[in-house]
Amino acid sequence: MKAARLYEYDPAMNVRLKIEDVPAPTIDRPDEVIVKVGAAGLCRTDLHIIEGVWRDIMDSHGALLPYIMGHENAGWVEDVGSGVTSVKPGEAVICHPLRTCGICLNCRHGHDMHCQNNLFPGLGLDGGFAEYFKTSERSLIKLNTGITPLSVAPMADAGITAYRAAKRAAKLLDPGDWALILGVGGLGHIALQVLNEMAGCRTIAVDREPGAQVLAKELGADKVLSGGPDLIEEVRQITGGGARVVIDFVGELGVENLCWKLLKNGGDLIMVGYGGTIEIPTLELVAREIRIGGSLVGDYTELVELMELNADGKVKMHQTEFALEDINTAIDDFKNRRFTGRGVIVPGAPSTRRAEERTAEAVK
Amino acid sequence: MKAARLYEYDPAMNVRLKIEDVPAPTIDRPDEVIVKVGAAGLCRTDLHIIEGVWRDIMDSHGALLPYIMGHENAGWVEDVGSGVTSVKPGEAVICHPLRTCGICLNCRHGHDMHCQNNLFPGLGLDGGFAEYFKTSERSLIKLNTGITPLSVAPMADAGITAYRAAKRAAKLLDPGDWALILGVGGLGHIALQVLNEMAGCRTIAVDREPGAQVLAKELGADKVLSGGPDLIEEVRQITGGGARVVIDFVGELGVENLCWKLLKNGGDLIMVGYGGTIEIPTLELVAREIRIGGSLVGDYTELVELMELNADGKVKMHQTEFALEDINTAIDDFKNRRFTGRGVIVPGAPSTRRAEERTAEAVK
Amino acid sequence: MKAARLYEYDPAMNVRLKIEDVPAPTIDRPDEVIVKVGAAGLCRTDLHIIEGVWRDIMDSHGALLPYIMGHENAGWVEDVGSGVTSVKPGEAVICHPLRTCGICLNCRHGHDMHCQNNLFPGLGLDGGFAEYFKTSERSLIKLNTGITPLSVAPMADAGITAYRAAKRAAKLLDPGDWALILGVGGLGHIALQVLNEMAGCRTIAVDREPGAQVLAKELGADKVLSGGPDLIEEVRQITGGGARVVIDFVGELGVENLCWKLLKNGGDLIMVGYGGTIEIPTLELVAREIRIGGSLVGDYTELVELMELNADGKVKMHQTEFALEDINTAIDDFKNRRFTGRGVIVPGAPSTRRAEERTAEAVK
Amino acid sequence: MKAARLYEYDPAMNVRLKIEDVPAPTIDRPDEVIVKVGAAGLCRTDLHIIEGVWRDIMDSHGALLPYIMGHENAGWVEDVGSGVTSVKPGEAVICHPLRTCGICLNCRHGHDMHCQNNLFPGLGLDGGFAEYFKTSERSLIKLNTGITPLSVAPMADAGITAYRAAKRAAKLLDPGDWALILGVGGLGHIALQVLNEMAGCRTIAVDREPGAQVLAKELGADKVLSGGPDLIEEVRQITGGGARVVIDFVGELGVENLCWKLLKNGGDLIMVGYGGTIEIPTLELVAREIRIGGSLVGDYTELVELMELNADGKVKMHQTEFALEDINTAIDDFKNRRFTGRGVIVPGAPSTRRAEERTAEAVK
Repeated sequence: MKAARLYEYDPAMNVRLKIEDVPAPTIDRPDEVIVKVGAAGLCRTDLHIIEGVWRDIMDSHGALLPYIMGHENAGWVEDVGSGVTSVKPGEAVICHPLRTCGICLNCRHGHDMHCQNNLFPGLGLDGGFAEYFKTSERSLIKLNTGITPLSVAPMADAGITAYRAAKRAAKLLDPGDWALILGVGGLGHIALQVLNEMAGCRTIAVDREPGAQVLAKELGADKVLSGGPDLIEEVRQITGGGARVVIDFVGELGVENLCWKLLKNGGDLIMVGYGGTIEIPTLELVAREIRIGGSLVGDYTELVELMELNADGKVKMHQTEFALEDINTAIDDFKNRRFTGRGVIVPGAPSTRRAEERTAEAVK
Repeated sequence: MKAARLYEYDPAMNVRLKIEDVPAPTIDRPDEVIVKVGAAGLCRTDLHIIEGVWRDIMDSHGALLPYIMGHENAGWVEDVGSGVTSVKPGEAVICHPLRTCGICLNCRHGHDMHCQNNLFPGLGLDGGFAEYFKTSERSLIKLNTGITPLSVAPMADAGITAYRAAKRAAKLLDPGDWALILGVGGLGHIALQVLNEMAGCRTIAVDREPGAQVLAKELGADKVLSGGPDLIEEVRQITGGGARVVIDFVGELGVENLCWKLLKNGGDLIMVGYGGTIEIPTLELVAREIRIGGSLVGDYTELVELMELNADGKVKMHQTEFALEDINTAIDDFKNRRFTGRGVIVPGAPSTRRAEERTAEAVK
Repeated sequence: MKAARLYEYDPAMNVRLKIEDVPAPTIDRPDEVIVKVGAAGLCRTDLHIIEGVWRDIMDSHGALLPYIMGHENAGWVEDVGSGVTSVKPGEAVICHPLRTCGICLNCRHGHDMHCQNNLFPGLGLDGGFAEYFKTSERSLIKLNTGITPLSVAPMADAGITAYRAAKRAAKLLDPGDWALILGVGGLGHIALQVLNEMAGCRTIAVDREPGAQVLAKELGADKVLSGGPDLIEEVRQITGGGARVVIDFVGELGVENLCWKLLKNGGDLIMVGYGGTIEIPTLELVAREIRIGGSLVGDYTELVELMELNADGKVKMHQTEFALEDINTAIDDFKNRRFTGRGVIVPGAPSTRRAEERTAEAVK
Repeated sequence: MKAARLYEYDPAMNVRLKIEDVPAPTIDRPDEVIVKVGAAGLCRTDLHIIEGVWRDIMDSHGALLPYIMGHENAGWVEDVGSGVTSVKPGEAVICHPLRTCGICLNCRHGHDMHCQNNLFPGLGLDGGFAEYFKTSERSLIKLNTGITPLSVAPMADAGITAYRAAKRAAKLLDPGDWALILGVGGLGHIALQVLNEMAGCRTIAVDREPGAQVLAKELGADKVLSGGPDLIEEVRQITGGGARVVIDFVGELGVENLCWKLLKNGGDLIMVGYGGTIEIPTLELVAREIRIGGSLVGDYTELVELMELNADGKVKMHQTEFALEDINTAIDDFKNRRFTGRGVIVPGAPSTRRAEERTAEAVK
């Protein structure tokens, strides 16, 4: 099969993935499933893998180079192990990123990301930047009628990470409350749609990029701000004291110590982005009774819910597609924020057609 | 002032209210407020008052005939007692139906409807089918800029009763779940809008009246059913086993023993309408783990939230307006379901104009 | 192996189980586990199986006579299938009653009792009134150090059914609130202990049997009542208006229409027992805002929690033990309420010794 | 009346309060109540007031020197304003620290500490280190029969601050989980008792003082640690990975950056103490999904609940009593941690007797 493989880590990010023919994965255990990749989202974590940030963790999982990345996968079941009962070859599926055991206490509570025996294709095992990849039965969700793998692949990770944060927010928000989203990229634009559907609140979207601001406005944000030096004062004016919930999809570059200042008393900060260090006086936490909580990738059941919202036409992935052969262009465009929403790798797509479309898009 | 007064109870409902001049109410206690009535919603409870259903309760409150009904009131502050600090004459307000003490433990928990020292204008004290009525400071919510009393009066009771039930439902519903509403009248059409804004679920609306079905469709119900003999089977087919939440705004005429059969295992019935008696085998409750819970008029804070949704243009009262002089026509039209949504009494409106409009509406 | 088998259904309950030698179960699937039975609780459902109440359901599962009952099992792992990784032969375990698939959406939410592909040893497959029985990996919880199968077997069903109801109650109860338990048998006496540990409330226990009343008092009930004709008035006096939560472990014989009358406004009835039919006016539900909800057997994670409470010495099963050979005596004593708490069948125990002990106990 | 007054702020804390005769407070508004002080708890905030930490805030409230501190008050109603209906002279009461308006939206939600029109006797108005002080009707809770003001006064602030944090913790904790308390002083020893009553968890108490360690053990902590350099490792060993909830009553001196390291993945830190600054990498928050939340003084309804626990004998204030004349000794002993639990000022008590008792205690 065709696959894009990483041959060396490079902090400078100048290395290119090599597109080459490699053996397709095969079933080794009764619960395994081979998926023919329909599309695979490109995640900021992939950039960090190339940089070598995850090197130690990947080494510890035996994920030796050359390596196939890709953990936001959707496609069609190609082959199944002897114990698989819930899917059949030919069925369209989206894949929760983790392969979970279903036995440990975290799995029993539905906390898939904390499975004590998890495997992670795309971050430890070979992933989906290829024609086929291997996962297991417990990761799969059948697509609703009429939904294609291409239209939903990044829901598998970008989508549910945003959904998990936004759903938590929705449970906290009442009509009249303000929710504020920092960063309207591949995750933030999903969170905005989820809040619109699941909370009766008002929304402020903050992003420095004009393209992201336009997208936020189209998706129904009540206010769109560029995040200049007066942001705190602007937010206080608009909200009358601060936001009930702030979701921070940035988490670095100084945003991590701006985010909690945008809260009203009794408010909640949900942290999704990372990189920076929060410094907050305990007096601020106590006297204002604010809360700060991290939020990771969503659970399997959250991916099920998100796929239902998508099937109902309520939440859509805004994305730009690249042929597998064009993956290095995709990575380059991502690093330089040349597209809004999410970039998606499409193994079957012809390189030329997509390149032309991208040229046309760039001209517009 | 002009007021519509009830002179005798009549189970046959043939009695007519008398429109007459009576002394306007005056301030007796420091927390009291006189409100110039902008509009007052007409509630099914008003019909029950006329029938004499509430006679004993009203007598026990000293509410002797002749009596002014009307407990869904909005208007402008006319006069305030010496202790009132939060509103001033001239300000537009909507009035929570209960006058509460703010001291008892139920008030401290925000459970206004269970205030142990409550007074109830329109059901014990003279109400709002008049040019002025008296309430107290803790009942008042100032209207947002640009909102008129006329456009929101029934929110004070019909609105928050529906809102309370729908908000409880929204907290239980996840994307992919179905919510089912029985009865799309003055309450049901509000609940439908609230669910659309606050839950990512799908909705089924059931009503026998074609007008109500059209309204439900306009307000975005995913499915609208007429509630024929195949309802249970229809609902099972649509939902794949039953609704996650059913809100019953009827509660009588056999609907009270149909409603819980529409639930999926683990589902919740929220009961708002009343009149009938539920008969349910305990085995059905236990083996299917379903829950049945009554829901009364909403709290003050729920009225605040509903007014925010209304100010945001997310929830609107569908209503038909009648001059105070035409109140007997309004009652007659209500009894015979000649309008959809809510009927509203407007003290200042000229009788003739509204009568002509109604004629025009009837012709369309 | 030795097993107690049912040869015919008998509504009059005069039939006796036959103790005989039968082939021990064997591993057929990779996730299966053979458990050497340490003890197996005797449940009211077993009586109903004998009566033939469950006949149709059992026939539909292919559970043909002669049949081995017993679904409250604890013991030691004897043999494991090729795919089992979390337990090893020799380890002491307690067994959640259902064998679940781990794949369906209900399993993913942790709602084990609603698994769409469940198998039920003791109610469809042969159960634990034998020296060995077969279950699967996902049903097993390893016992904490120092805990014996004999001391906890009925926790597997009686225990978690009571725990699930009491935990739900605990989340609703605040200090100063009253919780009321109807029926202090094998389930009720566990619920009482759980409430004592997990809620700061006050408790009323109601049971007609003097032995159960003594037990309730020993376990710390604040008030113990015999449930005579003045019960409603007694409860109102004690609680000042009604209980915040009532848990009904009876659900028949008229108790099903007494239970909800013991609630205060805004209160919750949790229904565990069954048999009767509730008749409740919708007006009662709505005006008093009370809720009625069924509660079934607990989830796997609830059994884990209950075992932790037990390991901490906070919740103990009050039980009377019988040798497997004495199972017909046990059934007879159970029907006639000759013991308090739970009856437990112990396959390894010598018949004579236990009979003597019982005689001694009866004399005391 | 006799009162202890502060004549100057002193960062070095060498100033002494002057015991003198001053005019007793009088009723000015219809909702006001004069309370004869039975006892008044001594709070760390009082030390900060003396140091001048609160000077600007107090000046802004017009709280000019000389000033009477004391905001943890219980006693007997002495006189009431014309609008007061719920208490009568002679009744024993405990006083929530804030005088709240009952009208603003925060009051309507029951968030007393965030009342937008609050007054704070003891921190802005004269407080309870005197024979009488003035508060208002909404602050008062009648004591249960048999409860004396002396036995409960510090419940009014120290008690409910600890209760609010511990109740929030209890709602998060399941059996088998560990809760960890940092600091077993006037607040921590209450939190420990509340957890024992309201959560089925296990507890670790950490304090450097041997006296506090003894108290923690007496109050039922499962583990008591001294908080040495190996604390993180000790806690990981005991808990198997970290505590589900940590309540930090210190919040300074380095504890503020130790506390969150004691959490397991998915855990919650509840911050009550303050002074230090938390520095936490966003990656730590996100990858481990931990939450950090401030918790302030409890609401009125939380004080009601705490008084019920106290009336039931479940939570007791461990305290040392001082005559009003001995208040400077009390302050000195508090600064030097010469007593465990809370110090309480008793206006009516004869100075000599109490001094002798203290001597006796010191000798023991």
